[in-house]
Amino acid sequence: MRVIVDAFGGDNAPLEILKGAAQAVAEYGHDIILTGNEETLRALAQKENISLDRITIEHCTDIMTMEDHPKSILREHKESSMAVALRLLSEGKGDALVSAGSTGALLMGATFIVKRIKGISRPALAPILPSDEGPFMLIDCGANADCRPEMLLQFAHMGSIYVSHMFADKKQPRVGLLNVGTEDTKGGELQHATFPLLKDSGLNFIGNIEARDVPAGVADVVVADGFNGNILLKTLEGTVDMLMKNLKGALMSSLRTKIGAMLVLPAMRALKKKLSASEHGGAVLLGVNRPVVKAHGNANAKAIASAVRVAAEFAESGVVEAIAAQVSTKEEPAE
Amino acid sequence: MRVIVDAFGGDNAPLEILKGAAQAVAEYGHDIILTGNEETLRALAQKENISLDRITIEHCTDIMTMEDHPKSILREHKESSMAVALRLLSEGKGDALVSAGSTGALLMGATFIVKRIKGISRPALAPILPSDEGPFMLIDCGANADCRPEMLLQFAHMGSIYVSHMFADKKQPRVGLLNVGTEDTKGGELQHATFPLLKDSGLNFIGNIEARDVPAGVADVVVADGFNGNILLKTLEGTVDMLMKNLKGALMSSLRTKIGAMLVLPAMRALKKKLSASEHGGAVLLGVNRPVVKAHGNANAKAIASAVRVAAEFAESGVVEAIAAQVSTKEEPAE
Repeated sequence: MRVIVDAFGGDNAPLEILKGAAQAVAEYGHDIILTGNEETLRALAQKENISLDRITIEHCTDIMTMEDHPKSILREHKESSMAVALRLLSEGKGDALVSAGSTGALLMGATFIVKRIKGISRPALAPILPSDEGPFMLIDCGANADCRPEMLLQFAHMGSIYVSHMFADKKQPRVGLLNVGTEDTKGGELQHATFPLLKDSGLNFIGNIEARDVPAGVADVVVADGFNGNILLKTLEGTVDMLMKNLKGALMSSLRTKIGAMLVLPAMRALKKKLSASEHGGAVLLGVNRPVVKAHGNANAKAIASAVRVAAEFAESGVVEAIAAQVSTKEEPAE
Repeated sequence: MRVIVDAFGGDNAPLEILKGAAQAVAEYGHDIILTGNEETLRALAQKENISLDRITIEHCTDIMTMEDHPKSILREHKESSMAVALRLLSEGKGDALVSAGSTGALLMGATFIVKRIKGISRPALAPILPSDEGPFMLIDCGANADCRPEMLLQFAHMGSIYVSHMFADKKQPRVGLLNVGTEDTKGGELQHATFPLLKDSGLNFIGNIEARDVPAGVADVVVADGFNGNILLKTLEGTVDMLMKNLKGALMSSLRTKIGAMLVLPAMRALKKKLSASEHGGAVLLGVNRPVVKAHGNANAKAIASAVRVAAEFAESGVVEAIAAQVSTKEEPAE
């Protein structure tokens, strides 16, 4: 597998991206194409003693920053490391793409450079998140603020296809509609209109689910419009961060707690690993013609390597083809 | 202060409600009016050795259950403990009301029995939640799924009035609009239309805020439609529950961690207290003519006593009058 990695996207670029790419080569045996300033990358590799074995560099000097308007990836910044990475992907020079750069720009670029799968109205950004019962997919988490019911139905199909292809123990993913209560009639206009579509979808639809039950692992695919999904995702992240910070403070508050902390440390590390989102490589972009993975903006080398692994598995899985097949079935006239 | 308490609302009714009422009398010196089956309550008090000093009972035998349609509080269940409590409140027999029963029924009953403040289009349910920087108000958390921009503006005013009256150190509450990013142009149609209204509101509007920053305490009043507010509230609760459960599991996983746990226990208890929502008495209902507090469905005696304390403070604060004054100002013709 050849995975294209945007070397200049994210808060920790280019060093952590470069390290992560080398780690992915060593651990998973994939070939990597890095996009970005070749001179800078080679100098950094030499200085930090990072092997460039099986890593090729596609030279470009421009960068998409967080301040740039997403649309500029198609014009002013069409030679940026992210735009070049997307072009290489669309031309088949690599099998999948990883970027930790601006989400808006990546969405815009993927939609118009890699292009949507025929019949998909909107691509969705879908993170794999940890729950008490294992990983689940949240779709959409912010690509589309205002959604129509038909879009949520497509999200449900795409998410279900992804999860069933990527997780051996989830062949019939439980699909839940994010809502303010579990009764069939709960929610606003969007939920009222989406519920019957999901019920008749042929998917393993388990009905409305509450945000409270999502961290416990009530569903394998949580369907939401991008606004609600974003609120869920960021509340979850913010709450974990706040609790972990306070926990650390509590454990370091006295000599007594410090001794206690030493004793509980291994168990805490295992817990952190279980609940770490970075184990799952970030968010995948579903509905475009090739596999695109959005790594977290503050991804470190390990998270980038995980994202490369996930991107390669995504490419091997046949998810894109399965989504295309699912959509084309729907387009055939009824007999 | 006389606080009316629905003795038969919530998962732990009537025992924990009765205990909580007695605790509120003892700790805060308020008089309590309990609504519900007098015989049952007296027998329970005797059996459990709970003092009924300064507690009067308004006898009624019917109960609003979670399965009953909210509207039934106005008809089939108009003699239920919740309906009777609301009627006593509207008649001025008590100064404030606490119920841990069905949220939907309490909203419906408060809106049509206690009635809206003139000029308020929709009452809002607003919990006080813990953050790293102290308590904040989330308004709305589920009373109104689909909202118009003008409703969010009213929520912002009501929330700001409540927080400034109830918290001595928050005279100019920071009001934030829950959104998917902090830039002024973020969000969907509702946020785009609400932003300028809040900017011109005269409130201490700090702009769009992300869900990620809410647990850290970025705002004193977080304004959201009821759907998104509900997602935020329940994700926060569900994440805390999931983490605490896993933390407990990790600390109890071996002899080593158990010894460590004993050493860190006091620090953990302090942390739990800091982040406990029940310290703040649940959610208040803003926009109706008298103070109504919704205690959590699984509230225990301590949480009920806290809710009684908050309800009495709410009644003393002049919040209802201030909201009425604010709305009437808006209704006067411009000079």
